[in-house]
Amino acid sequence: MKPSIPKGTRDFSPTEVANRTYIMNTIKTAFETFGFQPIETPSFENSSTLMGKYGEEGDRLIFKILNSGDFLKKADQKLLSEKESIKVTSQISEKALRYDLTVPFARYVVQHQNEITFPFKRYQVQPVWRADRPQKGRFREFFQCDADVVGSKSLWQEVEFVQLYDSVFSKLGLAGTTIKMNNRKILSGIAEVIGAQDKLIDFTVALDKLDKIGQEKVEAEMLSKGITEEAIQKVQPLFSFEGSNSDKLNSLENMLSTSEEGKSGVEELRFVINSISELGLQTANLEIDVTLARGLNYYTGAIFEVAAPEGVKMGSIGGGGRYDDLTGIFGLKDVSGVGISFGLDRIYLVLEELELFKSVDLPKPKVVFLNFDASTDVVKMKAIKSLRENNVKSEFYPDLAVSNKAQKRQWKYVTNREIEFVVSKVENDVFTLKNMTSGEQLECSLSELVNQLKA
Amino acid sequence: MKPSIPKGTRDFSPTEVANRTYIMNTIKTAFETFGFQPIETPSFENSSTLMGKYGEEGDRLIFKILNSGDFLKKADQKLLSEKESIKVTSQISEKALRYDLTVPFARYVVQHQNEITFPFKRYQVQPVWRADRPQKGRFREFFQCDADVVGSKSLWQEVEFVQLYDSVFSKLGLAGTTIKMNNRKILSGIAEVIGAQDKLIDFTVALDKLDKIGQEKVEAEMLSKGITEEAIQKVQPLFSFEGSNSDKLNSLENMLSTSEEGKSGVEELRFVINSISELGLQTANLEIDVTLARGLNYYTGAIFEVAAPEGVKMGSIGGGGRYDDLTGIFGLKDVSGVGISFGLDRIYLVLEELELFKSVDLPKPKVVFLNFDASTDVVKMKAIKSLRENNVKSEFYPDLAVSNKAQKRQWKYVTNREIEFVVSKVENDVFTLKNMTSGEQLECSLSELVNQLKA
Repeated sequence: MKPSIPKGTRDFSPTEVANRTYIMNTIKTAFETFGFQPIETPSFENSSTLMGKYGEEGDRLIFKILNSGDFLKKADQKLLSEKESIKVTSQISEKALRYDLTVPFARYVVQHQNEITFPFKRYQVQPVWRADRPQKGRFREFFQCDADVVGSKSLWQEVEFVQLYDSVFSKLGLAGTTIKMNNRKILSGIAEVIGAQDKLIDFTVALDKLDKIGQEKVEAEMLSKGITEEAIQKVQPLFSFEGSNSDKLNSLENMLSTSEEGKSGVEELRFVINSISELGLQTANLEIDVTLARGLNYYTGAIFEVAAPEGVKMGSIGGGGRYDDLTGIFGLKDVSGVGISFGLDRIYLVLEELELFKSVDLPKPKVVFLNFDASTDVVKMKAIKSLRENNVKSEFYPDLAVSNKAQKRQWKYVTNREIEFVVSKVENDVFTLKNMTSGEQLECSLSELVNQLKA
Repeated sequence: MKPSIPKGTRDFSPTEVANRTYIMNTIKTAFETFGFQPIETPSFENSSTLMGKYGEEGDRLIFKILNSGDFLKKADQKLLSEKESIKVTSQISEKALRYDLTVPFARYVVQHQNEITFPFKRYQVQPVWRADRPQKGRFREFFQCDADVVGSKSLWQEVEFVQLYDSVFSKLGLAGTTIKMNNRKILSGIAEVIGAQDKLIDFTVALDKLDKIGQEKVEAEMLSKGITEEAIQKVQPLFSFEGSNSDKLNSLENMLSTSEEGKSGVEELRFVINSISELGLQTANLEIDVTLARGLNYYTGAIFEVAAPEGVKMGSIGGGGRYDDLTGIFGLKDVSGVGISFGLDRIYLVLEELELFKSVDLPKPKVVFLNFDASTDVVKMKAIKSLRENNVKSEFYPDLAVSNKAQKRQWKYVTNREIEFVVSKVENDVFTLKNMTSGEQLECSLSELVNQLKA
């Protein structure tokens, strides 16, 4: 019986760990360059911290941890015999695995509010767990990479998050990403204009299909969802919503002129767009997208979403937004927060597809010393010691090969692992160094060996 | 109601994350320099992978994850009503949190045996979870840092692990650690000589007290545990087990001359001791300790344990050993493994006590731009952009301060966070840069500013 792992989870090979670490370190370095500080929270929280924060569906997808010891002791006999799983849960389980990084962060801010200097710019790169149905790019254990600022309402934070996305994706060599922005207040304005907040999602979903199915069919869909002819007339400009960001802003301003909230959303977005025009971006595009309705339940201002470069089929590789009351659920009112997240697994798939991992230093030794002659062991180990002191990743093949077959196994080991350099022989303190790519061989002293491999 | 976290778990502040990352990166870099490759395994495994591998006590301490959905459906009605917690567990829980890194590693090796080139040198730095009673230095969630080699019986691996310990602790500035070594075969030899394998732990435990209670009381304790007078006579040299490692080896060789296994253990240990004498260590001491009986249930050869420098009160800060059959439990026979572990939390406490974190670069901005004048926002943001492009961690205080009080809040922010440099003013593209330590102020152009802070 071959051992296996739970569905939706993964083992990571050395190469995969190296590539993932490369992405994470690029993100972390950018976070710190932008002034964010790392925190870490426990993998499991008290269930009361998590339950009820992600809706009914979320509650269902949270992994619960069984209490230790005689966990049934305190459980209600009647509920047990009626097999009331959901009601029994809270009686036999008090802890649950982290579902995202935002709720634990809100809990952290409230719990440590007296140690924190606000505004607090924190980042967090840790795994989260969801009992979701696994599918391509969706796992039951995956990493989130979040940066948030709490305690400031300044729109400069939104500007900085656009720069931060641009900076990370540019460093990763992923040119041509599109950072889409919207503002919850603009959506509220549209809802006001079309006369019903509850039709807003139907409206944006239909509008988003304009490219594919054309205006006529979009309008038909809207009508079928109960949006009135009159409402559709009022937002006609959205059907020809092309042109530059400032064209779009002007058009929105006109359209939403009767909605105070809508106008305020346009002004916020205009500030970010104008600031980014002045500051410039390296490789990303910034684009207003009024169909962006992500996180409508909690975002109250800016909404972000990042699309991979054109031609790469992949959902969003990042997203975020502003929430006016992040910590209220834990009793600390009126703390505004804004944050973004990087989707590690999807970014991985995009970089893989575009062959952008080539530059990643794989975690393998640069040189392996073959082991054909026990009498030179100590000389080799001394050389390896010098190399390691010079930060050259070095390895001594551990088992002595006497037979031809055993020697072949060592050559096969270095070939399989694509080792760059091999020391095959040492005689009178002269090392035979072979470049496995070019096939070149060099005889050299220890100091020459070190210099050669340090380069 | 103030929010809290489960007992035995911890939040880590930015400074703590930075210090922990420093230790982990030092360990990981050393692992890679020695030719080890990283892997990662899922946080939870199928319960069948973990249960029964750590003894009855271990099984009890493993955190189990409740099945999703209607988990009681398949549970036995009778067991539920009798509240048979232990028997019900396997019916309502199929997954469990990782308890250590060794069993998942063994599972990984068997599952991926066809992708792995042996000998396989892997390292793994990940959290593990134990439902242990929390106490000082013992947590329910903690990191393990393991390096293991599988597929080689070469004693050079043991030599390299001694070097690896020395290398890591030296890099951390922790001079004067003692790497204690023993060999399971020596312990078996002693058991043979004293006539009973089952008295071996009693024997080593008693012997370990020699320093504190003297020979007479140690012998009395041994007699009380059922070790015969005759047996005690046979191992008399252990009571004056002083001197150099080679003195100890010679003494052991004489004492164990009638035990083949014992002699083989002495030879193995001699090889490691002699090799290390030839190769030298940076700051650690290597010491034979026959009372070291760690992991006696599974180690079959070398046994390692590392003690903090003298004067620091702390249990072992690392340990490991050789196990002849690591992967047998998962069906792959005769794969020898040897490995060591670093105790991150204890190392942290030792470094903290010895004030060895001073050199750690804290994750805070090097410079903060104060925000007293909205008209210079863009100039400041352009400067910050240049600084960040030059990898200078920089931050713009997000909210404009007009009142005196608000301005003071910004000064307080930079003082609280111990920020090194502050840009307080920009006028006609001249930046006022203040060194917060010396109090010095400098007026400079953008390029001077960048040069000043890059240094």
